[in-house]
Parts: sequence; C-alpha cells; structure tokens
Amino acid sequence: MSTIDTAITASRELYDQSLSGLVEFLSIGSVSTDPSCAADVARCADWLAHALRGAGLPHVDVVTTNGHPIVYAEDCSAGPSAPTVLFYGHYDVQPVDPLNLWTDAPFNPIVKNDTIYARGATDDKGQVWAHVKALEAMYRTGGRLPLNVKVLIEGEEEIGSPNLAPFVEARREALRCDAVVISDTPMFAPGSPSLVYGLRGLAYVQIDVTGPNRDLHSGSYGGAVNNPINALAHIIAALKDSSGRIAIPGFYDDVIPLSQEERDELAALGYSDETLKADVNVDELFGEPGFITPERLWARPTLDVNGILGGFTGEGAKTVLPSKAMAKVSMRLVPGQSTAKVVQQLTNYVKTLVQPGISVTVTDLHGANPVLVPRDTPAMRAAASALETTFGTACRYTREGGSIPVVELFDRVLGSPTVLMGFGLNNENAHSPDEHFSLENFRKGIEAAVRFYAGYAAERS
Amino acid sequence: MSTIDTAITASRELYDQSLSGLVEFLSIGSVSTDPSCAADVARCADWLAHALRGAGLPHVDVVTTNGHPIVYAEDCSAGPSAPTVLFYGHYDVQPVDPLNLWTDAPFNPIVKNDTIYARGATDDKGQVWAHVKALEAMYRTGGRLPLNVKVLIEGEEEIGSPNLAPFVEARREALRCDAVVISDTPMFAPGSPSLVYGLRGLAYVQIDVTGPNRDLHSGSYGGAVNNPINALAHIIAALKDSSGRIAIPGFYDDVIPLSQEERDELAALGYSDETLKADVNVDELFGEPGFITPERLWARPTLDVNGILGGFTGEGAKTVLPSKAMAKVSMRLVPGQSTAKVVQQLTNYVKTLVQPGISVTVTDLHGANPVLVPRDTPAMRAAASALETTFGTACRYTREGGSIPVVELFDRVLGSPTVLMGFGLNNENAHSPDEHFSLENFRKGIEAAVRFYAGYAAERS
Repeated sequence: MSTIDTAITASRELYDQSLSGLVEFLSIGSVSTDPSCAADVARCADWLAHALRGAGLPHVDVVTTNGHPIVYAEDCSAGPSAPTVLFYGHYDVQPVDPLNLWTDAPFNPIVKNDTIYARGATDDKGQVWAHVKALEAMYRTGGRLPLNVKVLIEGEEEIGSPNLAPFVEARREALRCDAVVISDTPMFAPGSPSLVYGLRGLAYVQIDVTGPNRDLHSGSYGGAVNNPINALAHIIAALKDSSGRIAIPGFYDDVIPLSQEERDELAALGYSDETLKADVNVDELFGEPGFITPERLWARPTLDVNGILGGFTGEGAKTVLPSKAMAKVSMRLVPGQSTAKVVQQLTNYVKTLVQPGISVTVTDLHGANPVLVPRDTPAMRAAASALETTFGTACRYTREGGSIPVVELFDRVLGSPTVLMGFGLNNENAHSPDEHFSLENFRKGIEAAVRFYAGYAAERS
Repeated sequence: MSTIDTAITASRELYDQSLSGLVEFLSIGSVSTDPSCAADVARCADWLAHALRGAGLPHVDVVTTNGHPIVYAEDCSAGPSAPTVLFYGHYDVQPVDPLNLWTDAPFNPIVKNDTIYARGATDDKGQVWAHVKALEAMYRTGGRLPLNVKVLIEGEEEIGSPNLAPFVEARREALRCDAVVISDTPMFAPGSPSLVYGLRGLAYVQIDVTGPNRDLHSGSYGGAVNNPINALAHIIAALKDSSGRIAIPGFYDDVIPLSQEERDELAALGYSDETLKADVNVDELFGEPGFITPERLWARPTLDVNGILGGFTGEGAKTVLPSKAMAKVSMRLVPGQSTAKVVQQLTNYVKTLVQPGISVTVTDLHGANPVLVPRDTPAMRAAASALETTFGTACRYTREGGSIPVVELFDRVLGSPTVLMGFGLNNENAHSPDEHFSLENFRKGIEAAVRFYAGYAAERS
C-alpha cells in the first residue's frame, strides 16, 4: 500500500474514536458572542489543545488574546524543502436562540441517521475535527508528516475575529506558508464536492430609532407623535425597491460585473431552484431581477434585516406607542465593493429617510471585504484531486454567499492563497436550530484531508 | 355645614387612611393579560370587595366570569324616587415591561413629591379608589347615601373586556341607572378639569409574516430567499403615505368630518404643541396633514405599530435570515368608522402587499367602536359643577384619543349616558414605565366625586 492508502486505512480504524471525540468537542457551549459563555469558550480551547497534542502535534499553544484564546499548533519537522500548509478553523459557535425550536439540546450532541446534531456540528467544529483526525491518521502511519503543518484555530470567528488580525500580523514570519486550507464552506450538493473560489463580504450595522422619551399610550398620543417603529419600517422598506434591488444610492457602482464566461459557468452548474424552494419550503424565490439563483447567492450583493425589535411583543394587545425601535441590517458585498464605503452610503441614505420627530443612529457592528482566490495553484490542484478521489466525482468550482474574512487577511498579511475545501451542506442549519453535519461527509472529509496533505506534499516534493 | 361640606370634611379626615389603602391596592400585580398573574388578579378582586364593604356598601359580590372576576356592589336604599348612578372602573393594569426602565419596582408603590408611583396608579386604580373613598366619606356623614349607587369594577379592561358585555347583558335590569360615571380619562391639563364627550375606537391586529421554514444563514441564502422582516417592513411602510396619512383604501370613507363649530371649539382650547413636544421630548410633531394636534389626537383616525419582533435581537451581530416576523398594529377610529370594516379593509390591503416567497396572516386581536356622548344631561351638568367647585376653574369639554369600549356598551345595553370625569394627567405614563398619579388630583378627585354624587342627587330630587 502507498503511504496515502495506509493513512486512509488508519483513519478508518480511528473512526469510532473520532466520532466520540467530536461528541465531546460539540458538547462544549463555546458561544463567542455571549459573555456568559466565556468560561466554556476557554474550556473549549484547552480541550482542543489537548486533543491536538493527542493527535501527535508536537507544539501546541493556547494563546491568550484580548478576547477568546487562539489555539495554535505546528509541526515543521518535514524541513525547509517540504511545503508548508496552514490549516485555519474556528472552535467558537453561533448563539443557540431560538432555543425552543431545537429538537434536542444544542450542546447535547445526538447521532441520528448517520448525522450528528449539535450547535457547531457543521460550522465549524465537525470540519475542524476532520482535519485534526486526518493529521492523527498520518502520524499513526509514518510517525511523521510529509509536509510542514501549522494549525490555527480561533475562538472569535462568529464575532468577526477582532483579535485574529493582530495575531497574524505579529506572527507574520512564524505563520509563513505555501498555502492556507479552510474547511468552512458547503459542498455544491450531497455527493458533489466543490472548491469555493469567491466569497461575499459583509457590512453589518444596527439602526436605532428614537421617538418620544418614553413609551406612550397610543390612544392618548397616537396621531400627533411619530412612532419609531413606523419610522423604522419606512427606512427599511426604502432600502430595497419593490423588485428586490437595493435602492441605496451608489450601492452598485463599484460592483465588478460577472464576465460572460463566469455567468456561463454558473449557469452550467445546473443549480436547482426547485431544490432550494423545497429545502426552505417557499413557493417562490425572490431576488435581484436579471440574475439566476447562484449569481444572486454568490456573486451579487444583498441586503437583509437580521433582526428587528420594538414596543410590545408579548401575548395579547398592549396599546403602546414605543419610545424606541431597532433593526440589525447586513449587506453581503462582492468584489469591487468595500465595507467602509457601503456603510457610509447606507448611513448617508438613511439620513434622508428620517421622518419628523424621530432621531436615528447607524452603528457599524462588523464587516469583511469580499474575496476571490486564484484557481490555478498547486494547492487547489491537490485539493481538487483529493476531493475527486474521495468522492468519486468531478470537483465543482463555486462561489459562496457568506463571508470568511480571514481569507483576505491571509492573502494580505501572509501572501498565501487559500483553498476553501468544505464538507458541509447548505441545508445543515449552520446558523439556526437543529444544526447538523453528515457523518458520511465527516468520514470523507477526514479522508479528503489526508489525501490533500499527502498529495500536496507529493506534488511539491 | 351642608351635607356636602360635611362629607368633604369627612373625606379630608379619611385622607391618610385613603392613601394607605391606595398603596395596598397598587401593590397587587393585577396584570390581566399575563396568565401567570391570574392569582394576583383574583386576589385584587377579593381585596377590593373587602374594601368596598369596609367603605359602607351593604351588598358586595365578586362575580366569577370566564376570565377574571368582576367586583360588583350596590346600595339602592335611597329608593326608587332617588336617582341611580352606576360607577364603572377597572382594577386590572397594563403589563410592566420594559421592567428595566422603571425607577422603582412597579408593584412597590412609592410616594415622591406628592405623587404616587406604581403600575395602575393613574390607570385606573387611583381613580377608582377616589370614588370608593368618596362613597365612604358620604356614608360617614349621614350613614346613608342620597342616591342609589351601583359599582361595577372589572378586571379585564386592559384586555378588551371580553366578559363584561355578557355580564351587562345578563344583568340589564339589575344595572339600570340614570347615568354612568367613569374616571379613566385625563384632565385637559394640570389644574384644568375636563369632561370628555368623545372617544376614539380601536382596531388592534397582529400581522404574522412567514418566509423560509427555518432561520437561515443570511450569507448562504440572502439574495435568493425573501426575508420576512424586509417583507413586513414593506407592508408597514405602505400603510401610511410619507405625509402620515393612512393609505389603506377606503379607510377614511366613513369618517364623519368635524363640523366647523367643533373645529373652532377645539382650536379655542389653546392646546399647546410646545408643551406636548417638551413632554415627550421630540423636536417636531408628526401627523395627518391639515389638522391641528387636538384634532389629530381626539377626532382623526390613526395607525400605530405597537410592537415588532423578528430574527436576532440580542447583543452583537448574528447573520440570520429569519423564518418569521411579527407586528402588532392598531388603528384608532372615530365616529362613523366600524372596527369590523377597517380590519377587513386592512386585511384586504395587506394581501396586495405580500411579496413573493412570503405568507402573511392578519389576526384581529381586539376592538372598540368610537363613541360620542351627549353633553347636555343632568349628570354632565352635575359633573361640571362638581369639577368647577373643586378645582376653582371652568370645566373644559374635550375628546380623548383612547378607547373606553364600555361607554358604547352602557349606551347600547342600558340606554344610559356616560359621564367621563377623569382625574389623571396625560403625562402620567399610563401604559409605560414609572406610571404615576398626582396625589393632589387624588384628593380633589375624592372631593369632586363627593360633590358629583351629592349634587346629582340634589339636582334630581
């Protein structure tokens, strides 16, 4: 058997242990946005560092930051003539609310139908764990790795990675690598692996609207004192026209149009609107006119209200004219656009929409610039080959609608291209109740990671 | 001293006891809309019945209903030749949220600057208690009342009085009276008493919007799957035009226009926009073009969103494309309009505003038809005289923006006109945190009630 085959066999022998480790990993409620979970986030970092040592990595640190710790490990014993890969992932997870919509407790992982259910299962613990176990299988095979590996797993991805850039900038030399690999993107479809070469950016703001200085009786004051919820709805409604196109002046000015070649390629993917409609159970899709769904999802900017709150929201009928209302609004950006500029465009436009008797503030909560990564690199070829061998089918090249801001960071600071080789699926409820991860893809993810690391080492040696 | 003067003196001697009784009354958290407060609502009814017996009323019942109990008392010992007044009030109170905006606990009444702070202080326990103490002072004076009195105090006013109409209809004969008196309206201004002769009606609905079958990642789905919050904002924004006029087709068709005489009278009140702006701390008022503030508040219909909720509303930035959003929307109606018709008009209009990929339901939560009461009746004259003597100034005639649905009920079922003689003030936070009631108006309310009951008995005897 080849070294790769031996490592694949080792990964299969390790599988039961890999699954029980994943259950442990997922039972730690590492919600980075919730201050009350800080101790669990720290515990998760320690647990992960311990697991990386157990996998065979000789140098593992839990690095303190101004926020949640970064877990960093490396093994550069393959020497300077061997290539170096930096694996990046995150061990923090999204909040769990609305908790009442979960079938099982989010931090009590349950396996049903070869699928594991827990917050973080697909985003990103399950995918991180596949890489850890791939490295462990490779250590078991030859006692050492055929390439230099650096492992950087942060605990603040879900809150915009505020402490990652300082870390990467401070360790610019230590983190040098030939390629970065990340598994935090969905596959094109079940059984159909893909490499993501484009990511949308993100600009996330909060709009706070204030009217009267206190909640008023809507009977006594309604009609003469402006209502901040009505005023907020007026603002939100004006952010898009009735066709679904964003109405912020200048918003589309910097968008680099898709080339006809890329539009043809996206059309040829055979993306199924019917599958999407069935998945989310809507009778019609709705988006920017003139673009097909994969263009709308991956290559065109969008605007969504992520949350809204104001007044009385309990049971029954309370006749309040509220003092305040709030909306969280995010825009997905595409190449050409910049976070700072669209936030300014939005803010300027909102100012023109403020009704009498109302004051409005727009607060920039976080952002990420859009990214395109080169497709024709040794690491991308090694990844495509690993995926094709593992899944037995051609690898697709897609873009993705979400943001992974570190891709831009690694490109800018380390000069390293990123391979986005994900094993999740789009309907695995990444940010909603009953998040889950296919265990078939978990197993294939381990094997594809083995083939990627080994294949990349072989191609470069 | 006249009997009235003796009773006024007795009410003053009773004052310390009246205040301590009010503190007890206000410390019971009788929130009718909250099922978890049901025991407190029941306890409040029992407490009030006990207090009415203590005041001197010979027949006091706590009447079970399908919801919260009705407290009913009567004393018809003045005989058939004496007039009969029905006093109506409510012992239930609004919910207390947002609790964090209260300076003191809402059910721990605090007296500061001759003002009592607690939920229900002005709406309506403080005003109910003024009548109870007025009757007690009259009993202390002569051992008996100079007129027949029926006291009906319900526990469901804040939830639309679902069990009051059946009670009144079933006891139509027992409740017969020459006039109804209610103290649940504001005075025109501090020191300036008023009688309210018009009330707006209310139509209160909930709009529920559903998009995808679960909360989605806004990066993965945004741009192709419609967002229920954006779709809800589109609906709400379309309910009014940019000038503040309601845009529901047909909404104004049945509105009976104000006569020029009434417009002149409202203009002559000298309503101060500056006072209102300072009260609620806004730099501009906002309402239907072409009408002055008292017209907008009292005599023109309005539409307000009372509450809105959807998606992620916690700290930070969660990139969710939510499954659902909800708004509570109420319309204040004026004479000519009917609750059922405007709800139907709203529902039909909303149907035309539903975007692709979204489903919407409109649920009628509760309503009340608008009312005008006759101004030239013996009871109104007795009330005006009582107010003028007590406050030492002319009584104003105003309308009110809120709804008191029982006024229409008493007119329809009992054929009795209602006197709306309130002692509250508009800025006493009736439905918001730090609700309070002026103790000067509480004392004057007791005295005005004594003068009203005694004066009405004298006028009719």
